[in-house]
Amino acid sequence: MESLRVALGERSYPIHVGSGILDATALYAPHLPAGSAAVVTNQVVAPLYLPRVKKALEAAGARVAQVVLEDGEQSKRWTSLERVFDALLAARCGRDTLIVALGGGVIGDLAGFAAAIYQRGVALLQVPTTLLAQVDSSVGGKTAINHVQGKNMLGAFHQPRAVITDVATLDTLPERELRAGLAEVIKHALALDLPFVEWLEKSIDSLLARERSALVYAVRRCCELKAGVVAADERESGVRSLLNFGHTFGHAIEAGTGYGAWLHGEAIAAGMVMAAELSARAGLLAAADVHRVRSLLSRAGLPVTGPALGTERLLELMALDKKVARGRTRFVLLEAIGRAALRADLEERQVREAIVAAAQ
Amino acid sequence: MESLRVALGERSYPIHVGSGILDATALYAPHLPAGSAAVVTNQVVAPLYLPRVKKALEAAGARVAQVVLEDGEQSKRWTSLERVFDALLAARCGRDTLIVALGGGVIGDLAGFAAAIYQRGVALLQVPTTLLAQVDSSVGGKTAINHVQGKNMLGAFHQPRAVITDVATLDTLPERELRAGLAEVIKHALALDLPFVEWLEKSIDSLLARERSALVYAVRRCCELKAGVVAADERESGVRSLLNFGHTFGHAIEAGTGYGAWLHGEAIAAGMVMAAELSARAGLLAAADVHRVRSLLSRAGLPVTGPALGTERLLELMALDKKVARGRTRFVLLEAIGRAALRADLEERQVREAIVAAAQ
Repeated sequence: MESLRVALGERSYPIHVGSGILDATALYAPHLPAGSAAVVTNQVVAPLYLPRVKKALEAAGARVAQVVLEDGEQSKRWTSLERVFDALLAARCGRDTLIVALGGGVIGDLAGFAAAIYQRGVALLQVPTTLLAQVDSSVGGKTAINHVQGKNMLGAFHQPRAVITDVATLDTLPERELRAGLAEVIKHALALDLPFVEWLEKSIDSLLARERSALVYAVRRCCELKAGVVAADERESGVRSLLNFGHTFGHAIEAGTGYGAWLHGEAIAAGMVMAAELSARAGLLAAADVHRVRSLLSRAGLPVTGPALGTERLLELMALDKKVARGRTRFVLLEAIGRAALRADLEERQVREAIVAAAQ
Repeated sequence: MESLRVALGERSYPIHVGSGILDATALYAPHLPAGSAAVVTNQVVAPLYLPRVKKALEAAGARVAQVVLEDGEQSKRWTSLERVFDALLAARCGRDTLIVALGGGVIGDLAGFAAAIYQRGVALLQVPTTLLAQVDSSVGGKTAINHVQGKNMLGAFHQPRAVITDVATLDTLPERELRAGLAEVIKHALALDLPFVEWLEKSIDSLLARERSALVYAVRRCCELKAGVVAADERESGVRSLLNFGHTFGHAIEAGTGYGAWLHGEAIAAGMVMAAELSARAGLLAAADVHRVRSLLSRAGLPVTGPALGTERLLELMALDKKVARGRTRFVLLEAIGRAALRADLEERQVREAIVAAAQ
């Protein structure tokens, strides 16, 4: 097991990455001062891993409540939160209770938000079981639910007390979700770390074959990169936004196809190709590097062209996103492979050309 | 106008207290970087003060959205928050918008919580228009909504950017609410400041007559006391809980009579008499000082005996509160007039005797 630290002063916390650590009681025990815990998970994850996590918590002396929600993005809403609160109150969980988020990004966001607001904030452990959650959403404290008018519209920054990441849980992850998680791995590398890109180019097949040591390395490296960015910019006013590489286009793809049709990672993959093409049009990136982005994503089995929505519809969706966020659309572009930068000086013509180029 | 500061590092903020400052554009202008604001208020306050606040914001260059909720505690729930979010989204308010809470404690708590979670947190101004909100709930960052199983069960700590307190708005406050606000004024003094108790004993009639200079002094002194406590203990793990003097009994009175039958301040007033009686039974406070507490509250026109619920019912409600909060019932008692202390070593017999004594 390897452990690293997210440095946020008194809200600092460790990320433990290993294989087979899901039921390591010693990792849970320090976070149970009152001996009260509630595990929030979903119907897919519960039969696979809930009994082991409950056993580990009980071995640490905790009374354990549980909430099993439906699987999927549609659970990320207020009515699910109410189910969590009802369960917490029924189990008489007080301010010193620990909420354990066991699952993927939806569970992490939802249970994290529940922890942020229950009795004005209780302790949280993230136990991510998808690659996407392990490399991205479990680290950094972003929590949220959706509003009918937008994803993650309501939420809070609420850092966990620890992240317990067991790559062995990826054994049960559907192939398509593994690949979608790899899109976020590739995103971290392209935005921040050329040597990690080179490692991925060598190791992508080992990752697809779910080799434990390769997975531990990739997850740890992403967490290191993200921890550094979060420590420097917890609330995403600057450098943290570089991890949104591919997201401006990706969000439009998700919105345009109806949430769920494309997995988040798939939309981000196509979005990264568009962002790379835009970087080339802005005179930042060589054509050979755009090809390199496309090629790595392709080898990971990810889409490198967007859905057949049409260029105008995509532009419209991006403008809508911009209006809701108030302010100019800023793009995260690549100045080089492994070095992202925020740019707001792009013309619509360049964006249109990038979308067209990415479709070819 | 007098200004004081709540010292919380980079989340520090000023409290402005004066008479006739409600529409002072200069107090709003520094908090409108993006020129976008939304005022949250209720149907009673809106006709009285909304036009003036809107005008001040517009004079500072802001586009101003508004949300007018129903008056009363029943508005402190999720469906009201949804109305706020719908209005914010309809007005395309982004992360740089300013939410202005214009009203009493319910509006402050609700609009504050909306600001805490909209797009993971936006800026907030508190503009309290009741005495209770001016001396207590607008300062310190506690925000919340109710859950059917308990008051303030869901919430966040979200400090405002500034508090703008105009005592002239108290001219329109119903007499009964003015008196309920005085209960919180007296609470601050009894818990923390003997000279302030002495001042109140001299000035209570001026406050009841709504003399502006007396009101400014009382509000400023309460805010100073609360600011000191909040700066030392933002999340109420220690000294801040001393401001809960009278609240353990008071909450039971509110729960037992049905929320709203007794105003919060009225319940706290009777609760403070019970807490003083308990302090005497614990050997901390002289009988003459209990009389002094009772007498000051009485002169303010506040109830000094609880409702006819019966002693056993009140004890039962306190035990229920304790169960939900997990942990022993701790009482805030008086070691002397102006000096509160937290005690957990009380016997049920003593609590019962205190309730009986307070009823006589």
